Amino acid sequence: MTAGILRVVVLDPKLAPLRAEFEAALPDGASVSWPDPQDTEAVEAALKTADVLVSGQCTGRMAALAPGLRLVHTAGAGTDRIDTASLAPGTQVANTFHHEDSIAEYAVSAAILLRRGFLRQHEALRHGRWDSPAYDPGSPWVDTLGAATVGFVGFGHIGARCWQRFRAFGARGVAVTRRGGVDAAAEGLAWSGTIDDLGSLLEGSDVVVVSAPLTSGTRGLIGAAELSRMRSTAVLVNVGRGPVVDEDALYRALSDRAIGGAALDVWYRYPVDGHSAAPAEHPFGTLDNVLMTPHSSGVTRQTFARRADDIAANIRRLAAGEPLHNVVAVAR
Amino acid sequence: MTAGILRVVVLDPKLAPLRAEFEAALPDGASVSWPDPQDTEAVEAALKTADVLVSGQCTGRMAALAPGLRLVHTAGAGTDRIDTASLAPGTQVANTFHHEDSIAEYAVSAAILLRRGFLRQHEALRHGRWDSPAYDPGSPWVDTLGAATVGFVGFGHIGARCWQRFRAFGARGVAVTRRGGVDAAAEGLAWSGTIDDLGSLLEGSDVVVVSAPLTSGTRGLIGAAELSRMRSTAVLVNVGRGPVVDEDALYRALSDRAIGGAALDVWYRYPVDGHSAAPAEHPFGTLDNVLMTPHSSGVTRQTFARRADDIAANIRRLAAGEPLHNVVAVAR
Repeated sequence: MTAGILRVVVLDPKLAPLRAEFEAALPDGASVSWPDPQDTEAVEAALKTADVLVSGQCTGRMAALAPGLRLVHTAGAGTDRIDTASLAPGTQVANTFHHEDSIAEYAVSAAILLRRGFLRQHEALRHGRWDSPAYDPGSPWVDTLGAATVGFVGFGHIGARCWQRFRAFGARGVAVTRRGGVDAAAEGLAWSGTIDDLGSLLEGSDVVVVSAPLTSGTRGLIGAAELSRMRSTAVLVNVGRGPVVDEDALYRALSDRAIGGAALDVWYRYPVDGHSAAPAEHPFGTLDNVLMTPHSSGVTRQTFARRADDIAANIRRLAAGEPLHNVVAVAR
Repeated sequence: MTAGILRVVVLDPKLAPLRAEFEAALPDGASVSWPDPQDTEAVEAALKTADVLVSGQCTGRMAALAPGLRLVHTAGAGTDRIDTASLAPGTQVANTFHHEDSIAEYAVSAAILLRRGFLRQHEALRHGRWDSPAYDPGSPWVDTLGAATVGFVGFGHIGARCWQRFRAFGARGVAVTRRGGVDAAAEGLAWSGTIDDLGSLLEGSDVVVVSAPLTSGTRGLIGAAELSRMRSTAVLVNVGRGPVVDEDALYRALSDRAIGGAALDVWYRYPVDGHSAAPAEHPFGTLDNVLMTPHSSGVTRQTFARRADDIAANIRRLAAGEPLHNVVAVAR
């Protein structure tokens, strides 16, 4: 920090639409640069004098280029691509959330869409076929959310907000978390348990919402054995991380119609640069019982406006010498 | 009614899956026939001795064939295809509802789907394209329901239940009805008005839910002038009757992208027999900003189970000489 100037480098393109509001909320004397993240030279030049880096990624190389860094702030929850060990001692790493509302509306709308067969009916009616039991006795009868049990695998910010929304439709809820400890009565759930109760949850649920984070303990948590315990009409909604559900087993369960369908917002492969990449090894896009979205369930103006507010507030705290909020790590 | 036998003829195929439950709920001494509605001879034979007809349709010819009819019960709300004037004096016409929950979940999920661009993102990701501003700066930013004003055109059973669900997501609500009289404060709406306020509602809403019935006063209620007052990002959800929204004007507004999109569950043309028919003169199925469903928003097991209960209860009342519920007309 040179002569009262706080240099902020923003590399997350999702904040660009909020540039004016973000800059207005920064403390006096802050200077902000928005280098094109693809322009290596511009990024490296900006990092040299950076006090604050706003980015989902900070590699060892980036850290080495930025000796003055005091804060790395993600514009999201995940800090798994911040190489904290490479940062200078005392550098703080902070994150921010606010995606719960946006993800909850995704989970509810996707679950209704798949349970009710609206996606299939839409495709049929585009071709003049009325695919409803009111017109076609061969068309399946479907059920409302009011008749559904929704099972939550993970019950943090996201799971809990999803449940609030499903509950408004009269659904019954159950939840399992890694260590247990969710107060079922307080949350209005029929029961809650630990990961040991996952099988019971899968057997008894019509909608399964996965919001567990990816750790060594959750990778492949839902595999072939677990999927085989699900109801043949049940819908899986994954808003956690792709590999929490085993890709091979999921593709097989969907293509065999062993489960009713899946709404997948998190994937097995992501674009490295740009916006093209097959999201998985298996061709999920050929299945008619899948809704596939590009990790967009939390991506709304509201999510990022609130995140920009959080980040600006933390930068103001840094300038004022106050403790930051949402610090997830401090480099040693 | 011959010697204590009450003869019930069911022509609505949507009750067939509930046959056992329905028959078990009828009074002692009732006899039920379920002729194939396409088999004219069987239908006519059954009508000759019918005391009760359960059907969405009763033409003058059908009425003439059934001189003993005392009750025509629809398994839905609409009685517009019951030719009450042709029925013998004293014959009652009754209806039933219970579709509100099912329609409300359609309206909410369709509104989220279209506002958030999930249908478009789904199609793109099937082909490996990540159509979200997190990956593609050209992809549009979208908003949560919490930031939306939802305008209700019609606020009966259906509109009110839809609003309860939208409200759970933090949306703001406004409503217009033909004669006004909705208590905005009691309903939690920002305001309510009469049809004279339709223009203000359309200008200020991000989602417009049409649940008004079709009458001479509502045909074409939303035409070119009204659609032109809607926001360019706004989504229209029609769960009332197709012709409440002018077909030509709607097709033009959608294909010109003068409005954001539409979820259409009610149509301009219906299948006469079977399950094939273009639902409109214009090719709505070629537009990528339309979700089209075959009048299925209310068609769930729960809706029809509750309707079958209502109809059986009314038949028990008829057998016991008690007043019926939900009588909409008595032939004179």
